[in-house]
Amino acid sequence: MRTTVGIIGAGPAGLLLARLLHNAGIDSVVLESRNREYVEHRQRAGILEQGTVDVLREAGAGERMDREGLRHDGIELRFDRKRHRVDFPALTGGRSVTVYAQTEVCKDLIALQLAGGGPLLFEAEALAVEGADSEGPRVRFRQHGREDVLDCDYVVGCDGFWGIARNAIPAELTRVFERSYPYAWLGILADVAPSHDELVYARHDRGFALLSMRSPSVSRLYLQVEENAEAESWSDEAIWDELERRFETEDGWTLDRGPITQKSVTPMRSYVYEPMRYGRLFLAGDAAHIVPPTGAKGLNLAVGDVVTFARALTYKKKTGSEERLDSYSATCLRRVWQAERFSYDMTSLLHRAPGATPFEGRLQLARLERIASSRAAETDLAEAYTGFPLDEPDEQG
Amino acid sequence: MRTTVGIIGAGPAGLLLARLLHNAGIDSVVLESRNREYVEHRQRAGILEQGTVDVLREAGAGERMDREGLRHDGIELRFDRKRHRVDFPALTGGRSVTVYAQTEVCKDLIALQLAGGGPLLFEAEALAVEGADSEGPRVRFRQHGREDVLDCDYVVGCDGFWGIARNAIPAELTRVFERSYPYAWLGILADVAPSHDELVYARHDRGFALLSMRSPSVSRLYLQVEENAEAESWSDEAIWDELERRFETEDGWTLDRGPITQKSVTPMRSYVYEPMRYGRLFLAGDAAHIVPPTGAKGLNLAVGDVVTFARALTYKKKTGSEERLDSYSATCLRRVWQAERFSYDMTSLLHRAPGATPFEGRLQLARLERIASSRAAETDLAEAYTGFPLDEPDEQG
Repeated sequence: MRTTVGIIGAGPAGLLLARLLHNAGIDSVVLESRNREYVEHRQRAGILEQGTVDVLREAGAGERMDREGLRHDGIELRFDRKRHRVDFPALTGGRSVTVYAQTEVCKDLIALQLAGGGPLLFEAEALAVEGADSEGPRVRFRQHGREDVLDCDYVVGCDGFWGIARNAIPAELTRVFERSYPYAWLGILADVAPSHDELVYARHDRGFALLSMRSPSVSRLYLQVEENAEAESWSDEAIWDELERRFETEDGWTLDRGPITQKSVTPMRSYVYEPMRYGRLFLAGDAAHIVPPTGAKGLNLAVGDVVTFARALTYKKKTGSEERLDSYSATCLRRVWQAERFSYDMTSLLHRAPGATPFEGRLQLARLERIASSRAAETDLAEAYTGFPLDEPDEQG
Repeated sequence: MRTTVGIIGAGPAGLLLARLLHNAGIDSVVLESRNREYVEHRQRAGILEQGTVDVLREAGAGERMDREGLRHDGIELRFDRKRHRVDFPALTGGRSVTVYAQTEVCKDLIALQLAGGGPLLFEAEALAVEGADSEGPRVRFRQHGREDVLDCDYVVGCDGFWGIARNAIPAELTRVFERSYPYAWLGILADVAPSHDELVYARHDRGFALLSMRSPSVSRLYLQVEENAEAESWSDEAIWDELERRFETEDGWTLDRGPITQKSVTPMRSYVYEPMRYGRLFLAGDAAHIVPPTGAKGLNLAVGDVVTFARALTYKKKTGSEERLDSYSATCLRRVWQAERFSYDMTSLLHRAPGATPFEGRLQLARLERIASSRAAETDLAEAYTGFPLDEPDEQG
């Protein structure tokens, strides 16, 4: 089997990349180790930056998103029983975010790919990338119990944190930057209309809480819990009670309860793998970087990576110049580190670390007061939340 | 001995307070444990916020400052061998800072006080504040080996971190917030023209360095050193060599050397004591809060405190209402916590903590890149550096 771009992983990064390449007249093959059912149902992020929305729309994958996605013009910060709304369009010259779950993005992209894109092979497990530093890299993979080889001009590893693509980069050329956090998120889906029409980020002495939503009738809520907490050890009632405490306001806001349909615990981690390119192997999304979910940046970073790759390869095709492929890693990492910084800051701003000192608690409140009282500080947050701009090709030269 | 306001400590806070009260027709006595020579020569901060300059000028203590102080319209951030200037007036609507050493402020205020203010007693060591919660608080003090009592309507403790005033507040009513930093500053004075005309804050893998100045011919430079470093263990040559390394740029900037006339090590500490008032005892400046010197906020916070007290007492005198005296602590602490936050952030942004991870190093660089590329983030810094506004009396009602 042979293709121009071998893509490992059918998460949002791999699927979107296949679509972008298809639209640019470049053929690709996507290898995905899981089956379609699994890919279309794993719960992940749900906040799309303005730039991500624009890219999906341009790629022709925006129809259902435009119909069902919820445009959000702000978030609420809640602290000290007070409420402060951050107004995105007013602070950023019109930008907003869209609530539309990653699983839905994947469903839309899979449908497009199967209807008229290149091959998308499910249950095709990539085993190794070979010859990454040669003109003809290969992906060895196994499907239906048989090993096969995908010969490519380029390989893009979109295979996530646990993926195999980055193993092909010699360890002595790489650097890993990481941090883990001494807490986790307990996330629930509940069949109840969200109690607020925008996301609510709450800082409380008992820990962080986040109110989000999947649709006008499904709430998505998160609770900071201990690092090794098990979802089953939290009864539904205990979850609602704790959420209620952390969202409490002085103006008597109330949290509506409903049947919890799913519970799971997400660990918190920051991780960056450098470089994001070796020869003709490129890494994109979680394969190269992880952010804690507080800043809602994971999916959006992955989109930024594959857009950068697709543009670079298109440029190569048009001009013969490898310049933009050569700068892929540096271009992506600039944006990645800004997202890492923002995600770290949002996390530290709102969570209570075990053993946090009273001084640190007051610092958090002072930071929140600053955001609530300085247009500059608030704009800094709004810009980062709605998204760091994708480098335009013209800026990369 | 009896007065309206007993002031403990003839640092900038106590001296300025005496002047402000004098101008408002309120009498005071200042007790200072050291002699005049000592007070006029201890080296401390040297950056006056816009608001501090305005207050000193209005108080009639601005003549020499206006003549000899150096107005600075920006600072330089140096990182990754690059240089980024933060332009204060452009970002804050015209605000700037003034380089004029605290010792000079003290000399000016002492001269004014001795020329026509109330009593300023040197070598008068305050021993205890008594009856703070009564109508007639007293300061017991010792001068020339003899104990005496100063009877007051109000006592203001401007006696610094090691002072005795705050001991009069019952421990069960107080809360202390603190943090120490695992490094210190080695500061030098050198007889050489500053190598740059504005302050340079350098973040380097080897640690922080700061270029500042006392006058057009005297440089003030700082080097991050180990927590328990001794100034004597650093030879002059070693200091200059290390400064040169940390200030290195890709554009070949050079550091001029000169004779070092003074060396000392400053510990780094954050500290807040709450509340700042108990009955008729009020705390101001370092007696209630310490910031690490990175944000240049210590002196400016002290000025904010005594301005708030002088305004509150003037208001009481005019209207009979104690309202503003009652809100003194809360009013000051809002500003204090913003300065604590900013000082902590500037410190963390620029210093290398022992055992810092590579991830943390990259976060610092990402933060600096953010400041250098986002007007919002840069404005946030410029606003904080040039000073948080003093609460106007009208806002306190």
